[in-house]
Amino acid sequence: MKFWIVGVLILSFSASFKTALANEGMWQPHQLADIKEQLVAAGLELNPEDMSDLSKFPMNAIISLGGCTASFVSDQGLVVTNHHCAYRSIQHNSSESNNLLANGFVAKTKQEELAAAPGSRVYITESLTDVTDKVTGDISSDLTGNDYYLAIEKNRKALVAQCEVNKDYRCSVSSFHGGASYVLIKLLTIRDVRLAYAPPSSIGKFGGDTDNWQWPRQTGDWAFYRAYVGKDGKPADFSEDNVPYKNKAFLKVKASGVDEGDYVMVLGYPGRTNRYRTAVEVENTFTWTYPTAKVYREEYIDVIKQNSAPNSDERIKYASTIAGLANYAKNYGSMVKSYKKGDMLARKQQLETDLATWLSKDASMNKLYGDSLRTLNKLVVQSDQNKERDLLMGYLGRTTMMSVSKRLLRLAHEQGKPDIEREVGYQERNLKRFEQSMASVNSRYVADIDKAIVLHFLAKYIDLPAEQRVATFDKFFAIQGKDLSKAKVKIDRMYAATKLGNEDTRLAMMKMSEKELRGSSDPFIQFAVSQFDYNMAEEKRDKALAGQLQRVRPDYMKALIAFKKSRKEAVYADANSTLRITYGNVKGYSPQDGLTATPFTTTEGMLAKYIPGDDEFDLPAKLRQAILDKRYGSYVDETMGSVPVNYLSTLDITGGNSGSPTLNSKGEFVGLVFDGVYESIIGDWDYDPVYNRAIHVSSPFMLWVMDEVDGAQNLINEMHIVE
Amino acid sequence: MKFWIVGVLILSFSASFKTALANEGMWQPHQLADIKEQLVAAGLELNPEDMSDLSKFPMNAIISLGGCTASFVSDQGLVVTNHHCAYRSIQHNSSESNNLLANGFVAKTKQEELAAAPGSRVYITESLTDVTDKVTGDISSDLTGNDYYLAIEKNRKALVAQCEVNKDYRCSVSSFHGGASYVLIKLLTIRDVRLAYAPPSSIGKFGGDTDNWQWPRQTGDWAFYRAYVGKDGKPADFSEDNVPYKNKAFLKVKASGVDEGDYVMVLGYPGRTNRYRTAVEVENTFTWTYPTAKVYREEYIDVIKQNSAPNSDERIKYASTIAGLANYAKNYGSMVKSYKKGDMLARKQQLETDLATWLSKDASMNKLYGDSLRTLNKLVVQSDQNKERDLLMGYLGRTTMMSVSKRLLRLAHEQGKPDIEREVGYQERNLKRFEQSMASVNSRYVADIDKAIVLHFLAKYIDLPAEQRVATFDKFFAIQGKDLSKAKVKIDRMYAATKLGNEDTRLAMMKMSEKELRGSSDPFIQFAVSQFDYNMAEEKRDKALAGQLQRVRPDYMKALIAFKKSRKEAVYADANSTLRITYGNVKGYSPQDGLTATPFTTTEGMLAKYIPGDDEFDLPAKLRQAILDKRYGSYVDETMGSVPVNYLSTLDITGGNSGSPTLNSKGEFVGLVFDGVYESIIGDWDYDPVYNRAIHVSSPFMLWVMDEVDGAQNLINEMHIVE
Repeated sequence: MKFWIVGVLILSFSASFKTALANEGMWQPHQLADIKEQLVAAGLELNPEDMSDLSKFPMNAIISLGGCTASFVSDQGLVVTNHHCAYRSIQHNSSESNNLLANGFVAKTKQEELAAAPGSRVYITESLTDVTDKVTGDISSDLTGNDYYLAIEKNRKALVAQCEVNKDYRCSVSSFHGGASYVLIKLLTIRDVRLAYAPPSSIGKFGGDTDNWQWPRQTGDWAFYRAYVGKDGKPADFSEDNVPYKNKAFLKVKASGVDEGDYVMVLGYPGRTNRYRTAVEVENTFTWTYPTAKVYREEYIDVIKQNSAPNSDERIKYASTIAGLANYAKNYGSMVKSYKKGDMLARKQQLETDLATWLSKDASMNKLYGDSLRTLNKLVVQSDQNKERDLLMGYLGRTTMMSVSKRLLRLAHEQGKPDIEREVGYQERNLKRFEQSMASVNSRYVADIDKAIVLHFLAKYIDLPAEQRVATFDKFFAIQGKDLSKAKVKIDRMYAATKLGNEDTRLAMMKMSEKELRGSSDPFIQFAVSQFDYNMAEEKRDKALAGQLQRVRPDYMKALIAFKKSRKEAVYADANSTLRITYGNVKGYSPQDGLTATPFTTTEGMLAKYIPGDDEFDLPAKLRQAILDKRYGSYVDETMGSVPVNYLSTLDITGGNSGSPTLNSKGEFVGLVFDGVYESIIGDWDYDPVYNRAIHVSSPFMLWVMDEVDGAQNLINEMHIVE
Repeated sequence: MKFWIVGVLILSFSASFKTALANEGMWQPHQLADIKEQLVAAGLELNPEDMSDLSKFPMNAIISLGGCTASFVSDQGLVVTNHHCAYRSIQHNSSESNNLLANGFVAKTKQEELAAAPGSRVYITESLTDVTDKVTGDISSDLTGNDYYLAIEKNRKALVAQCEVNKDYRCSVSSFHGGASYVLIKLLTIRDVRLAYAPPSSIGKFGGDTDNWQWPRQTGDWAFYRAYVGKDGKPADFSEDNVPYKNKAFLKVKASGVDEGDYVMVLGYPGRTNRYRTAVEVENTFTWTYPTAKVYREEYIDVIKQNSAPNSDERIKYASTIAGLANYAKNYGSMVKSYKKGDMLARKQQLETDLATWLSKDASMNKLYGDSLRTLNKLVVQSDQNKERDLLMGYLGRTTMMSVSKRLLRLAHEQGKPDIEREVGYQERNLKRFEQSMASVNSRYVADIDKAIVLHFLAKYIDLPAEQRVATFDKFFAIQGKDLSKAKVKIDRMYAATKLGNEDTRLAMMKMSEKELRGSSDPFIQFAVSQFDYNMAEEKRDKALAGQLQRVRPDYMKALIAFKKSRKEAVYADANSTLRITYGNVKGYSPQDGLTATPFTTTEGMLAKYIPGDDEFDLPAKLRQAILDKRYGSYVDETMGSVPVNYLSTLDITGGNSGSPTLNSKGEFVGLVFDGVYESIIGDWDYDPVYNRAIHVSSPFMLWVMDEVDGAQNLINEMHIVE
């Protein structure tokens, strides 16, 4: 696999490398051999080199659910992940009379297992192949901007199409280090996935939004799937005749969990980090983008609340929208707070100064990379030129009718092209998910609320600097200066007349040609048509910029990697939803002077938070009684006289790691990672060993609830439990 | 002193007594001899019997400021207390051009010291004499209710008047154990008190309301006074010729402070606790009174805010009103939360059952006390009969015009009687303070806000059960059923016409006879006149009930004390603003599962909370720089590499203990107590060794700030510092 050769050329790890900061790093499987000394020093008892092999234990047991991670925990296709990763499937199988979200669900036999939500998949990474040459090698060095971007997209799509000839696979080409290398990822895709077990939400979601991103925490965030394949062992659509998938490797479960200080590691698919952004990017994000977006989100929520009574059907439809908006308002708030308290910007600036000094001492390096940071920052400034408008139009574009109409028109447009040339997200392979999203619009849409949000952001729009106003937008809504009176009348009429609130209409429109759709009298389709050319021009401009960045950022990264190499620092790539390993220890922290977060919580602490009938802090009677009776059996931790519920570690994780198994030094399953603490949210930009803590649910708590509360002994018996 | 004989008869302590719970107890000085074994076992190195002597070290160094505690820390009358206890004096000496609150104040010489706020006093407890016989001995056993109450009041007032013949003393008769005994307290009263030193509020009030009742905490809550007397050594009015008071004893200051686990004790004047209330009283308070009062206070604040723009003059006038309301809304909220989490009610009920069982086994005890709890509870239920109205009218009565007019009329009424017969609070000895309060009304009054609050509570009033409505009140405001329309017109007119918003008018009315005042055309005086008979009848009813309680509660307490004696449990009396000792250890706690409050905070933690220009979290530049430079000199704690700012202890304190010195096992000054943690607020009702923690400012932090930041070396030199 050529990637590793490139890796050696560029990154050239050797065992003498040190990590800059303890436990920072999301390492690619092939890097484990390179950092083996530090892994062993940290306590790993497996051979790091064995762990690089995707076809072997433990890596082969680690799977992706698309957005979440999971793992095999039996030789019969049993999969464990987070409750919040299986939420859609639990919801899908729930009805008023049989509410699995509220009551939980245990299939006592395989026959009782339930089909997961449509579109649920289990992805097993079968190979990672460096394809940098195939992506960039044949592109003329003359190409820049949009042409370069399109050339890369074309090569990536060709590689994906070629790889997906075998319909059992889903493939992607991921970019590492901002485009310094590309890797073709081939995922075996199992599409008969069934729900085997989920605790009630009062356990699986205990603490709700209040405790989200918080410690102390006592959440039982797990659920079990099972992967099924055809009798031939190959992926197949759901069928009664299908059989459990037999994976090459599965994880053994450690009944006693972990102790403070223990070596732990998480194997999974972290989504996205920004650890190598420039000081200019950092400063802009933390002093403008996040604070502004936080305000926009809070206002968005306010508008929804002002236009829907508490507990009304309308409010319920927007519950998940509100939760999502609030979730990231809190996220941004935490990051801005951490940023102000910390010195990330100063360290970035220092690093850039040090890098420049180092480059200036080597003529050849300086020639290659000496200008890369300056060029990169120039592009960053350019891309931020219309940041006020871009952010605002982004939130306006989140409103339902505007986004539905825009996506439908774009689909019609793309469907006029050969599949390979279509925009990512509009290809044949995306149509099923597209249809599902169009079908489900009404479960989260109320016309009056959607309209109120549009009007709210329009009132901000007219305050944009004149040069950032969009002429086609002003024209369509007849906005003159800051006068919205005509726009308001028009918008009232649009919401009254549109048929896009109708599922059948939307699905029918998915089948229309661009010409047919452009002829529609629907006012929102007309709106989409009126903005189409502008949107496409903007997209082209963005791609041109992306193409320039794809040229420049790899240069900057190569310079940075070489510099770090000179300082004997190992370098991991930013997270990009590909398989990674992070290792560290079970460890508490001090969130502030005078307070210590201890590394474990207990069942008694869970009970202390109990609020009868509460949305977030209710608890099943059976669990409460078992705690009161201290019926802990062999799952008790003798020292704490309780069952450890959640625990903290120093691991370097992010979104996408949800559901990842946590393994001890022997590779035994000791729990699931499901969250980070409030102070670690900024970790996506900057890992701070003092504050960065991941939150895990412990294996003894999982087993105890399965055994004592939920009656899932059949699954316990199926798993390989080690003491 | 006869009290101690009674004490022995009733309480009969011996060294074999144990305390029910570790560190619970606010012990009277004479009790120290009785609990000496446990004091020594806890680590006390002084002779407990010596500590009972009010004329000796350390007890003689402990003084009251009236509502706060303080102590002598030099042989030249130097007094240390909390910043919040000296706040009024700092404010009094502040002006826009010389803002001592903002900048702090250090008198480099005695000549630079500033007169404290008018009315500031230093009280030294010179004697505690049991006067139970004199209070209750001559009262016929036939007297009950109001007559009994008045007979006791008469005896108390006579004792006070006799004691205060020497004008150098302020005296009071305090009731212990609900009236089981009475003690005459004779306080030497120093009335020339001067401000010697106060840090800026950004140190002394650091954390503001946000951190109030919270840990982690980093507040420098101290200030220094000096007590002056005439050249003859006797109390005197302020005069340039006065000389520093030479007290018999003063405290030495321990520069290194305390370590975790150290024995500490607080000597001071705790205000009020309710540790011996019955289960019926507890349940009613925590399930009705506190939750309802919390809502009333929050609404009261809302009305103020709705009627005043942020930062407006109006809002500023109500700032301290809002702070006071919010403070106790938070207080009640905490107590209700702790009550729900805990088992206080169940324990009370168990205790009462056990007591009844124990009494039933002894015919003579049962005859004496067997009915006391039932009788007591009957009175409690009776006093709660109109609780909805009583609470509501209480909040309505807090509004300015209603309370000012009521108090003026009452004063005129009382002044028609001989001084000794006047109601407590309206005697000659109270007039100076009364006049001060009438003079200062306008600094916290805005007519429109006052009116809005009246209207808010009137809207609740009309929802009271019919039998709780007040006929004279309905009549005055012409309220018919739930119709407030006439009342609103009337109230508008009253606020437009009243002259009580004028300071001169109020002060002039203080001089009027009842007849003159009743003839006033002021609408609020007319209102007070219209309610006068009703109010007096209610007061008489309340006193009758109080008189019955004064008969019954001592019986219940005697039974309880005898029962606890049989279980070898020492019994301390509820706090009643008299001198007490509480002892315990420096110790952290776990506020909740997964979190530990460590016993110390640091200067670095203080700096981490710094918010430039903030009302609550600003910090002086000089302090910040000293922390950044770690210029800690000899005040550093080597282990923590910092100066310990605040620390936690298990001590049993409450309001009134503010400013109390904290002493180590040798009686050396190791800091000032100034607050308790959030979870310990319920401590006024129930001491919980798991959650009850007092917060102290450490002596090394005080000395370090004085030395390194505030330049108060002259005071350091004056004190006796021990290493």
